[in-house]
Amino acid sequence: MDKKMNILMFSGEYDKALAALILANAAKTMEMDVTMFFAFWGLCLVRDPQKMTDEDKTTYEKMFANLTPRGIEELPLSKMNIGGIGKKMLRDMMEENETPTLKDFLNGAIKKDVNMCGCKLSLEVMGFKEEELLSEVKIITAEEYLKDALESNIQLFI
Amino acid sequence: MDKKMNILMFSGEYDKALAALILANAAKTMEMDVTMFFAFWGLCLVRDPQKMTDEDKTTYEKMFANLTPRGIEELPLSKMNIGGIGKKMLRDMMEENETPTLKDFLNGAIKKDVNMCGCKLSLEVMGFKEEELLSEVKIITAEEYLKDALESNIQLFI
Amino acid sequence: MDKKMNILMFSGEYDKALAALILANAAKTMEMDVTMFFAFWGLCLVRDPQKMTDEDKTTYEKMFANLTPRGIEELPLSKMNIGGIGKKMLRDMMEENETPTLKDFLNGAIKKDVNMCGCKLSLEVMGFKEEELLSEVKIITAEEYLKDALESNIQLFI
Repeated sequence: MDKKMNILMFSGEYDKALAALILANAAKTMEMDVTMFFAFWGLCLVRDPQKMTDEDKTTYEKMFANLTPRGIEELPLSKMNIGGIGKKMLRDMMEENETPTLKDFLNGAIKKDVNMCGCKLSLEVMGFKEEELLSEVKIITAEEYLKDALESNIQLFI
Repeated sequence: MDKKMNILMFSGEYDKALAALILANAAKTMEMDVTMFFAFWGLCLVRDPQKMTDEDKTTYEKMFANLTPRGIEELPLSKMNIGGIGKKMLRDMMEENETPTLKDFLNGAIKKDVNMCGCKLSLEVMGFKEEELLSEVKIITAEEYLKDALESNIQLFI
Repeated sequence: MDKKMNILMFSGEYDKALAALILANAAKTMEMDVTMFFAFWGLCLVRDPQKMTDEDKTTYEKMFANLTPRGIEELPLSKMNIGGIGKKMLRDMMEENETPTLKDFLNGAIKKDVNMCGCKLSLEVMGFKEEELLSEVKIITAEEYLKDALESNIQLFI
């Protein structure tokens, strides 16, 4: 199938990340081409917890880096998070149901060659460095995102 | 008109549900084909308050079922909910303005033959049973959602 | 390029408004046609702080008008707002990075002739008057939004 889906991943929340990655994996099993464009809070999905650095960062950028989730499993729920209790419940329910974890879905998407793209401007504004992201993530501009979205049959803002 | 809209209803909030259902109803009056795919919190829009059951549920699933809204009028606002005050204000303003209620828009969508679909995986993870949903809701997979979305002229993630 | 993007701006948050307006500006520099349809909280992006009025409003409408942001720079962050601290941080980081402000992006979009539309029903329900919005905003119905979205190559709900 020569169909294509483009997801603009703006949100940095566990449940929304799960929805986006389930769709990305499902689309790849249908042999669709998939691009995920991580912007703003969405960048927290593709930070590599092993590669955090404080080098060359302003005080604000360091604070910001520390206040935001360090990798995908640290994301909070968009609602009913209740200091992590709701999220623990959801994860336990997923486990009981033998649903893969969020990290599994992310790894699945990478393995299935989902195009992983990070937003250049968001990166600059939030003070994240390209080296702090998963190595599969390519940095592109808003214009490049739009070109990809124009070629896609499905575009979603999550 | 042989145009088609597909809404992925992820959010379980009163105002977002209102936006989605207003669009669904408007599209049907324009003779468009409309599919709503209820996933995650969006499933709360199509729970039938008359058909809740604790049977065959784990402790977590029971807790979860009780902590989440039992039907569409119980949904909170996405902001300014203020323990229900903001929502009461909004509903009073809608009534004064003779706008139909959220329940009316839902019934309208069903009467106008909007395809109501529930997400299989979300249902399993959240521990809801198919029998607890409105009888018009058909359970489908993420792949089936994608097929419908690919045939649609408008796709929205709400 | 005769391509077209349509953004349904539902959210009234600083970061989501920023994402939407960056996309709108980028699309215009690529010579795409762009429509932004402001509905519900999204109307707060296009209120003119100079033109607020209490005339002909019910008590609820007055309260609502005063509880909601009066223009685009007053919008809160969708997360990490922390009583305005997170937002101040983000704005300082944007300034340091020489990113234009949200107001600049809004003015840029208007100057580049983005079609600015307000949702008729939202306006009525929330008790805002057409005269309280920026003069560039044209009021349209949900049906008119759908017509525009059907002609668009990219549709996003933000």
